[in-house]
Amino acid sequence: MDVTGFSIIAGSIATDRTSPFRSIDPATGRNGTVEFHAAGLAEVDLACRAAADDFDAFASHPPQRRADFLERCAAGIAQLGDALVAMVSSETGLAAPRVAGERDRTVNQFRFFAGLVREGSWVEAVIDRGDPARTPLPKPDLRRMLRPLGPVAVFGASNFPLAYSAGGGDTASALAAGCPVVVKGHPSHSGTGEMVAAAITRAARESSMPAGAFSYLHAGGTRELDIGRAVITHPSIKAGGFTGSLGGGMALARLAADRPDPIPVFAEMGSANPVFILPGAAENMGSDIAQRLHASVTNSAGQMCTCPGLIFVIRSAAADALINRLGELMGQTESMVMLSPRIRGGFIDRVATVESMPGVRVAAGGPHERPKTIGEQLTGGSYARPTLLVTDFAAFKAHHTLREECFGPSTLAIVCDSFEQLAEAAGLVDGSLTGTIWADPNIDQDAAVKIHRSLEQRAGRMIFNGVPTGVEVAPAMVHGGPYPATNQPHTSAVGSLALRRWCRPVCYQNCPPWMLAPELSDANPRGIWRWVDGSLGRS
Amino acid sequence: MDVTGFSIIAGSIATDRTSPFRSIDPATGRNGTVEFHAAGLAEVDLACRAAADDFDAFASHPPQRRADFLERCAAGIAQLGDALVAMVSSETGLAAPRVAGERDRTVNQFRFFAGLVREGSWVEAVIDRGDPARTPLPKPDLRRMLRPLGPVAVFGASNFPLAYSAGGGDTASALAAGCPVVVKGHPSHSGTGEMVAAAITRAARESSMPAGAFSYLHAGGTRELDIGRAVITHPSIKAGGFTGSLGGGMALARLAADRPDPIPVFAEMGSANPVFILPGAAENMGSDIAQRLHASVTNSAGQMCTCPGLIFVIRSAAADALINRLGELMGQTESMVMLSPRIRGGFIDRVATVESMPGVRVAAGGPHERPKTIGEQLTGGSYARPTLLVTDFAAFKAHHTLREECFGPSTLAIVCDSFEQLAEAAGLVDGSLTGTIWADPNIDQDAAVKIHRSLEQRAGRMIFNGVPTGVEVAPAMVHGGPYPATNQPHTSAVGSLALRRWCRPVCYQNCPPWMLAPELSDANPRGIWRWVDGSLGRS
Repeated sequence: MDVTGFSIIAGSIATDRTSPFRSIDPATGRNGTVEFHAAGLAEVDLACRAAADDFDAFASHPPQRRADFLERCAAGIAQLGDALVAMVSSETGLAAPRVAGERDRTVNQFRFFAGLVREGSWVEAVIDRGDPARTPLPKPDLRRMLRPLGPVAVFGASNFPLAYSAGGGDTASALAAGCPVVVKGHPSHSGTGEMVAAAITRAARESSMPAGAFSYLHAGGTRELDIGRAVITHPSIKAGGFTGSLGGGMALARLAADRPDPIPVFAEMGSANPVFILPGAAENMGSDIAQRLHASVTNSAGQMCTCPGLIFVIRSAAADALINRLGELMGQTESMVMLSPRIRGGFIDRVATVESMPGVRVAAGGPHERPKTIGEQLTGGSYARPTLLVTDFAAFKAHHTLREECFGPSTLAIVCDSFEQLAEAAGLVDGSLTGTIWADPNIDQDAAVKIHRSLEQRAGRMIFNGVPTGVEVAPAMVHGGPYPATNQPHTSAVGSLALRRWCRPVCYQNCPPWMLAPELSDANPRGIWRWVDGSLGRS
Repeated sequence: MDVTGFSIIAGSIATDRTSPFRSIDPATGRNGTVEFHAAGLAEVDLACRAAADDFDAFASHPPQRRADFLERCAAGIAQLGDALVAMVSSETGLAAPRVAGERDRTVNQFRFFAGLVREGSWVEAVIDRGDPARTPLPKPDLRRMLRPLGPVAVFGASNFPLAYSAGGGDTASALAAGCPVVVKGHPSHSGTGEMVAAAITRAARESSMPAGAFSYLHAGGTRELDIGRAVITHPSIKAGGFTGSLGGGMALARLAADRPDPIPVFAEMGSANPVFILPGAAENMGSDIAQRLHASVTNSAGQMCTCPGLIFVIRSAAADALINRLGELMGQTESMVMLSPRIRGGFIDRVATVESMPGVRVAAGGPHERPKTIGEQLTGGSYARPTLLVTDFAAFKAHHTLREECFGPSTLAIVCDSFEQLAEAAGLVDGSLTGTIWADPNIDQDAAVKIHRSLEQRAGRMIFNGVPTGVEVAPAMVHGGPYPATNQPHTSAVGSLALRRWCRPVCYQNCPPWMLAPELSDANPRGIWRWVDGSLGRS
């Protein structure tokens, strides 16, 4: 299929040509061949209005119809085949196997949510039957279920061009909930975004969904920020989904909070993903741990939300050997292409900051010079060297900047002098998507329980004897966590909880049968699980 | 029991005497006999630190122990008996039967949450078993459940001295979730707050709960705002609960958002609670509707979050008769004592604003003079006249202020010229806790469905042929709604959803059995409902 370079507004190709821009192949620094056109602000308005106009019609389709639509989206993205993989690689520098894996995950996400919609119990139906004879007051009949919020703005992520962009988890879960979606595409993978958006648009047409259910806005060049602002402040938009930097996420959240009618933004932001290696594990699994951490830190050039950025050990011969082995592996790894010149610049800048802190030494990969120019002016490929930095507990405790995320292929090892220091460190880390503990079950049980109880107050997902990268698309997954990992700790961007973000509960009091949704009717025609008068059942 | 006038900090009586204040009996305008002492800022710090220090111990108690504690709270409050009712009435002007009802509701709330904690399924346990043999990557074992956020700050409400104050729904649900609570008492019912707080403190002691699980701060006089600010910005506090005005709730939410680590505030704020009366209902139930609306508007002097503040009808002889009858009933109702001089002043000011808008006429109760002084300087009782205001659709559409809440015994009837105007009005109302439709099922079905679909996008609870006051404490209840009714539309302050506000989901990946919570262990010793590998069951 052809990439036109134009936005897709409620099923129609946009026409604004006043703000062209091009993508960059980060492996070469060269511009792509396609000229993209940022959506005009009138087109943004059109997309948001169409979403609002078609909200009721879209949300009112029977769930089975919406599940069909989601499955067509999955099939359509799968059918993009090798052309999609090639496009993603050329725009992001991500290797083809990783891209193919992300495509499969993206397809699975649509199928996963389709399955939830088809099954139906996700609406959390609860029924308390009334009792007109109760004294002193009659007991009302109360029934509640989740209802969609309305049109959702989705902001494409730089590091997941498929799984968290045009047709990513936020789009799939919002559509599943019955919310129309307006995507603000990420400018570093506009061709990818348009291919996926075209597939979703076709799926909507083939499923006879209203055209306003989905729009995709190219957003690059000088107009990018204006488009983002216009979308999140548009009166038709009722929620936002974002994956990216702390600064970007909080700026969006503030814009949303300052509206005359504040709306929620679900922002998944930075995360240091601390890893605690207990003495028995260092002793008996050190080499395996070093190898797995190396693979995890360098996975996709470290540009994963769950990249392990802090590694805590207690000083010992085994811990030294583990850190040394990790340094060797990092040192042997070739420079890696990063997603964009801007992200490479940010990485090198951040590593330089950490390197310059007292008590920090470069064990592999450095030293890095601060780049002379950050941004699209850089020529050549966006390469960066995998880097291992090492410090001690005192420096970690003294300098808060050492607790912050470094987005790219680097990690900071913190060598503690004692278990007490290790335990104190677990209480110092910022909110994070993940917390990892390596423990030898025969040696480290008590220590593991102590670290666990502290760390689980700061993480959305706890991993045992593993690495945090690799986010399974499954009902029990939590991809979220306390600030600064996200701004909404009670939610998850992955798994069945993702659906709930786009909804709110509505209660119906003494509602006549002819107005009740099937999910709340006495007959329960969909056979979903419901709490009825305090008992859970499907009858 | 004696009211000491001092705060209760983690089980101990506070001593700061530097900021004394007194309550006012709004029926007489006279000060109460007890001198209260606002908590010192060092005492605020002490309470918040104690909550953090005891969080892990409190949250780690077996659920049955926590349920016992909640039941002791219920029993303790019930045992306060007539003395509590008398104290509430003297501080708020609320009539004894209403206070007794609120006390019973408050007791029931503790028992309701105790029941949920005892049953246990509220933690939303989900288990996806692993498959080490899966290719290309092993499937991890994932298990998730809700975990408490940490210490919660609860801000007492003026209008629910029992059900939404020291021992109200926020306190009960947060304690149930495993979160210690620090209450900032409302200064207009400090004696009430201290009596309830003392009962909870006794219950904690008798249940061997850690002392930091509960503190109560007297907050009045010149130090009130400082105490509120100190609590919500304290590093130990992880969430806030508030019931009150839009201004107060948003100010707290902003303070919480501007922290170095932003935390959620769940604020239940203003709500106009629109009522739509369809033609058949006006024709055949008009007299009954007028009577029930009158009772609802004047219930507790209109100082209910769910007081029906907007009544929409289509012009007809029946609608005129209904409005006239409502006006007669309002006019026959004696002046009512309001909660405090400040609230009376706000009410009279607000009614005067509405009265002064073009197209608005006073049908009963007015005109009101703007008070010369607002605040505690007023002498005499805080009385106000029940008021019916009437306007037309054009004025309602033109002046946004007419859509806003008027806190007190008044309501605004909007007479539309046609069903089209009525339907447009349903799309104009602000977010609200409730939306009500009166419909004759034999005449109004189509019209009801149309209004319903529009109104349910703006309300947390839809009521049919009833009045919005009277919030049942039941699992299916939703007491929430889109802004400005609340700032967190996905939650509810009443019902089983209230628990979820104080929690976040945590996922455990490949967690060894010796570290798993019982709720997530294979054996499911508590017999709770769990989704395991996509199926719901209790085995």
